[in-house]
Amino acid sequence: MSTQTPTMAKGLDGVIAGETAICKVEQHALIYRGYEIADLAEYASFEEVAYLLLVGEKPTAAQLEAFNDELKGERGLPSHVRDQLKNAGELVKKHSAVPMDLLRTAVSVLGHFDPECQDNSPEANLRKSKRLLAKVPTVIGHMQNAIDGKDYVEPDDSLDHAANLLWMMTGQKPSPEAVKVMDVSLVLYAEHDFNASTFTARVIAGTLSDMHGAVTGAIAALKGPLHGGANEAAMEMLAEIRKDIGPDNDPKKIQDWMHKAFEDKRKLMGFGHRVYKNGDHRAPILHALGRKAAEARGEEFVKLFDLGEAVQKIMLDEKNIFPNVDFPCGMTYFTMGIPVPQYTPIFVASRVSGWCAHISEQHANNRLIRPRVAYTGPDLRKWNA
Amino acid sequence: MSTQTPTMAKGLDGVIAGETAICKVEQHALIYRGYEIADLAEYASFEEVAYLLLVGEKPTAAQLEAFNDELKGERGLPSHVRDQLKNAGELVKKHSAVPMDLLRTAVSVLGHFDPECQDNSPEANLRKSKRLLAKVPTVIGHMQNAIDGKDYVEPDDSLDHAANLLWMMTGQKPSPEAVKVMDVSLVLYAEHDFNASTFTARVIAGTLSDMHGAVTGAIAALKGPLHGGANEAAMEMLAEIRKDIGPDNDPKKIQDWMHKAFEDKRKLMGFGHRVYKNGDHRAPILHALGRKAAEARGEEFVKLFDLGEAVQKIMLDEKNIFPNVDFPCGMTYFTMGIPVPQYTPIFVASRVSGWCAHISEQHANNRLIRPRVAYTGPDLRKWNA
Repeated sequence: MSTQTPTMAKGLDGVIAGETAICKVEQHALIYRGYEIADLAEYASFEEVAYLLLVGEKPTAAQLEAFNDELKGERGLPSHVRDQLKNAGELVKKHSAVPMDLLRTAVSVLGHFDPECQDNSPEANLRKSKRLLAKVPTVIGHMQNAIDGKDYVEPDDSLDHAANLLWMMTGQKPSPEAVKVMDVSLVLYAEHDFNASTFTARVIAGTLSDMHGAVTGAIAALKGPLHGGANEAAMEMLAEIRKDIGPDNDPKKIQDWMHKAFEDKRKLMGFGHRVYKNGDHRAPILHALGRKAAEARGEEFVKLFDLGEAVQKIMLDEKNIFPNVDFPCGMTYFTMGIPVPQYTPIFVASRVSGWCAHISEQHANNRLIRPRVAYTGPDLRKWNA
Repeated sequence: MSTQTPTMAKGLDGVIAGETAICKVEQHALIYRGYEIADLAEYASFEEVAYLLLVGEKPTAAQLEAFNDELKGERGLPSHVRDQLKNAGELVKKHSAVPMDLLRTAVSVLGHFDPECQDNSPEANLRKSKRLLAKVPTVIGHMQNAIDGKDYVEPDDSLDHAANLLWMMTGQKPSPEAVKVMDVSLVLYAEHDFNASTFTARVIAGTLSDMHGAVTGAIAALKGPLHGGANEAAMEMLAEIRKDIGPDNDPKKIQDWMHKAFEDKRKLMGFGHRVYKNGDHRAPILHALGRKAAEARGEEFVKLFDLGEAVQKIMLDEKNIFPNVDFPCGMTYFTMGIPVPQYTPIFVASRVSGWCAHISEQHANNRLIRPRVAYTGPDLRKWNA
């Protein structure tokens, strides 16, 4: 390194690490393959968005029908994976696992049973993408059933992706409103260029390793509270505030709690973003839908959104930091009755579409991703000095 | 991105992505925490090097003894992981798995049973590093036993790391010479700054995800033939040349094979390196030891090294490309009777020391690793156009 003078970029902040045709993240826009996120959230289903990301163009009606049929046909799990997930309750309650860890293992094992696991061709990658997209919700559902000590709820072919996910997790047919909220949240979470988990997947794929390995690594990255884990952490923080201040949203108590957090230099979850400095485009879309769902569910949930809004206002007024999509997501999934440790696995059920698109793109035009590093260690010394 | 003008660096070639006190990779030196690789290969055992990487300083005699005892005490696997590995033969022979995939799954599952899985403190990270370092060879050994259809060979506390690994894989007490070769190969493979798998581990850890998840992702990255998988790919290529040209190393036939490969623009495995342009410091060290082992084993193995040397000479004379450490590693592990699909898992048994050191370093001074990307996709369009 002494002979070179490259840029030092801790965290790769602002460094352009490659090219992509999949997504554009800008201060003032989030675009999937040419379509703005608000346009997609309003008019496209998650399946249409997943097709768009994986294939590159929006599907015709016939293509969408075929795609939906393929996904429905691939929802079942190999018996080995089904059997393993039965241990989920024990692993979570008696050992150290959280659902994100179990999902990581399940996807790793799915690779062992995928007949095209070692084939990185564009055709095999597309087929594997569909299989992963179809099977991840089944893993999440079965895992939750096992944690709840209940029999597995089997996939229902009459239900689309979002509805089937809610059905498998709860064993109850969700309302159209709940399905809409879940579907939009999946659209919003599907893709976000070189975020840390997608970048992980691309670094792995860049060695010409396989898609299942790359998705396994991406799940490990998404778990972190500075990334996907923020939706769980945001809800845990709101629950802590609620516990501390009591059932009423006393403005003085909220302000005191926040000021104490500022004084303690505590990191408040679900706020700020490496790229967006003037707000995350996805946050208000999900917030509005979540608030509507809360109003339908009752006072407790409306009060949660009121609390969240008060927290947001203090963050903006006093720190000039906007919420990111994970902040309304936490409140929204809580309103829908989803257990907190499943919020980030649901993020996986969506983002796996973006990851697979990026892995395929990396394989199709590959260059090993291998940066350099500045050495700060001891000077040269001798072992037997 | 339109408002910024950052550097475009495909594959992050030449970009400095952070700082490390662990390793310095230069054209003319490879240094682990201040010690040159040739010095370590000659005088330090793998356990000493692993301690150096994880703790930061070479151990005293008492510290080394305690470290060795800790590793030996942690070699056993949770019964759940032991039981799962019994399926290795079926998964490799009847399904799509290779040993690197099964090792990835096993490490993911080890996380579920590690009582400190969710604790990223320096103290917990060091303890988890030791557990991973001790358990990975047992996973590799049991996996090979299962593939061979044999009972598990249990860890032997009278044997050090390298010897115990060979013992568990084969059920035979290795010669002191074989132990020395394995030990040096582990020293050479232990650490290499921001290589693709270590960088994967750091991107995962940078979200504040956990060590087991980060190592799981790193294994996925190491598998690729442009990274750790090259030691298997290099040996497969030599086996293919041997099959094509017959048992004698006819120089004309070797040259013809190589010229055909050049014409076909075939990527020859085990050659070239993103950083080293004038040769990989590790390659001649391992080559010399491997050749000595071959001479002890007999003519077939000497002829393999002769063939490898002829291939190297043509690559250097005609393409000016040097072999990297994976090229002699392939021939060396073959000489030691190790099954080819276990070469990269053995690389894991070594590099896990470097990965864990980097994960701890990332957690101790964290910044999310999140680059930007140049968008090359379609212009803005409307969903319902």
